[in-house]
Amino acid sequence: MEQFDVVGLGNAIVDILAYTEESFLDTHALPKGGMTLIDAPRAAELYKAMGAATECSGGSAANTLAGIASLGGKAAFIGKVAQDQMGKIFRHDMNATGVHFTTPPLLGTVSTAQCLVMVTQDGKTKSTERTMATYLGACKHISPIDIDAALIEASKVTYLEGYLWDEQPAKRAIEKAIKVAHGAKKKVAFTLSDAFCVERHRAEFWDMINTKQIDILFSNEREACALGETPDLNIAITKLQGTCDIIVITRSEKGAIILTKDDAVTLPAAPVDQVFDVTGAGDLYAAGFLYGYTHNMPIEKCGMLGSYAASEVIKYLGARPMSKLAPLVSKLSA
Amino acid sequence: MEQFDVVGLGNAIVDILAYTEESFLDTHALPKGGMTLIDAPRAAELYKAMGAATECSGGSAANTLAGIASLGGKAAFIGKVAQDQMGKIFRHDMNATGVHFTTPPLLGTVSTAQCLVMVTQDGKTKSTERTMATYLGACKHISPIDIDAALIEASKVTYLEGYLWDEQPAKRAIEKAIKVAHGAKKKVAFTLSDAFCVERHRAEFWDMINTKQIDILFSNEREACALGETPDLNIAITKLQGTCDIIVITRSEKGAIILTKDDAVTLPAAPVDQVFDVTGAGDLYAAGFLYGYTHNMPIEKCGMLGSYAASEVIKYLGARPMSKLAPLVSKLSA
Repeated sequence: MEQFDVVGLGNAIVDILAYTEESFLDTHALPKGGMTLIDAPRAAELYKAMGAATECSGGSAANTLAGIASLGGKAAFIGKVAQDQMGKIFRHDMNATGVHFTTPPLLGTVSTAQCLVMVTQDGKTKSTERTMATYLGACKHISPIDIDAALIEASKVTYLEGYLWDEQPAKRAIEKAIKVAHGAKKKVAFTLSDAFCVERHRAEFWDMINTKQIDILFSNEREACALGETPDLNIAITKLQGTCDIIVITRSEKGAIILTKDDAVTLPAAPVDQVFDVTGAGDLYAAGFLYGYTHNMPIEKCGMLGSYAASEVIKYLGARPMSKLAPLVSKLSA
Repeated sequence: MEQFDVVGLGNAIVDILAYTEESFLDTHALPKGGMTLIDAPRAAELYKAMGAATECSGGSAANTLAGIASLGGKAAFIGKVAQDQMGKIFRHDMNATGVHFTTPPLLGTVSTAQCLVMVTQDGKTKSTERTMATYLGACKHISPIDIDAALIEASKVTYLEGYLWDEQPAKRAIEKAIKVAHGAKKKVAFTLSDAFCVERHRAEFWDMINTKQIDILFSNEREACALGETPDLNIAITKLQGTCDIIVITRSEKGAIILTKDDAVTLPAAPVDQVFDVTGAGDLYAAGFLYGYTHNMPIEKCGMLGSYAASEVIKYLGARPMSKLAPLVSKLSA
């Protein structure tokens, strides 16, 4: 079988992005900066209330895989779409970016997952924040049968998103993926996804970490603190260090901290002229890092490439880069 | 009935935008900067070959109506979508922008129209150009029965797009709309849409102009020259002046020329920091101009507002503004 750098397992989602006022989030009881799961009727109601939008393929792990492929890496994705127009868009965008994606679509009337992304802008700093409401639709139906063992065995890293913990069949799919990956002596990477997601599944996440099921953990500051049950990042770091081989904690414009078994590397963020929309920054950081990791770069270079990739996607509205990221790899070597 | 500033009749299209190399246009025999009509199999083939894309509601007249509503005007739209996800997106975006849009959807298996927009960037100047391939789908089925006479009678201006000439039932719908509008002593505005469109329908367009069916004509430099069958804009102007009450000729960064019966007003373009994507510039110019016209502004102010609105939309990828345009009206009065 063809060999891959990274295979990712995640929710296959089309993002529907619109600018909105902060008051809209209050009216609809959506915690700012977080991801709320919604059912079909609420999705319809919220969409009706939202402003004119732009659609683009999303999904956290899917964005990461698209980023890896854009950097020139060999990437594959496992995820569930429906047989509708949104599903076709998602599949097209993955394939067009060069991501191997062959999970069969869900038959029936359930639609492809949609994430309503409300982008708010701070009047003073002009910085934006995204608040998400996700209708999982077809994603709820991913199950162990969708886990292509040969694909996972052919990939250096299997990348999993925390968001998948919200559904039971998806959890069983993940368990299978981890077992296959580790059985083939491959690495497992995991992203905590969202502080609210950590709140929902903290005990299970710690259990996975403590039983050595995760080799590389991706987290942002808020998620690390949520996992450590502390507002103090240093305390969270103390609790986390040594649990996984590599723990990446991204800190937006403050850069990132990378914890290995017995070291902590602090890296600055790549300079950015203009932040247009931070959607996808964490996903693309993981893309850059994993591209570096699977190409045997030293940890500092992995982090720098992560930062470059993240800084690229925040220039645009949407969670995927609009141009090939491969030049970033050359920039790193220069 | 509620009164409207402008009712527009046009193709109801969802745009699928992707960056591409110029060589892609050659490979697929698409004339750069133009709009090519394609059938369903060719649309599928071209989409497969295109890169990862972003979707947003489009359609020339629809963009103009969305712009008028965004400026604070009362806008209505008549157009045909299918009962699919793309159709729902189009309807949502029109309603969310405040445009009255109640044309019933087409039933059956034909899908909502899609415009594949290939954005090419000049390596030196960084300026972008859009090349379009349109699958008309449900739009082909608009017909006189969709023309709500009461809505047209309730609107100061009925705005029509030249692109509609590509289908016979749509032409009959336009004839009805013009008859109703003029019967109610309202104005008819028309956009030439595209130089290739003018080539296809030159004789009919001249016939409409010469029989006084058009009061306000929108055109860009290339379209005016195509209509005048000359590469010299001055010759085209000589042929056009005096035919319609108002003729607007937009010239991108060179501004615009507005011809009235016995005057020619030359206006500069609004200054723009950065041109990201020119898609929709002409549509939004018409929006600003018609907002001004229906609010009894002098012709120079109509042109300036057109230029402001156009300069706003070219900052983003896509053909509709991402923020409310109403502040531009205040800027004009300041």
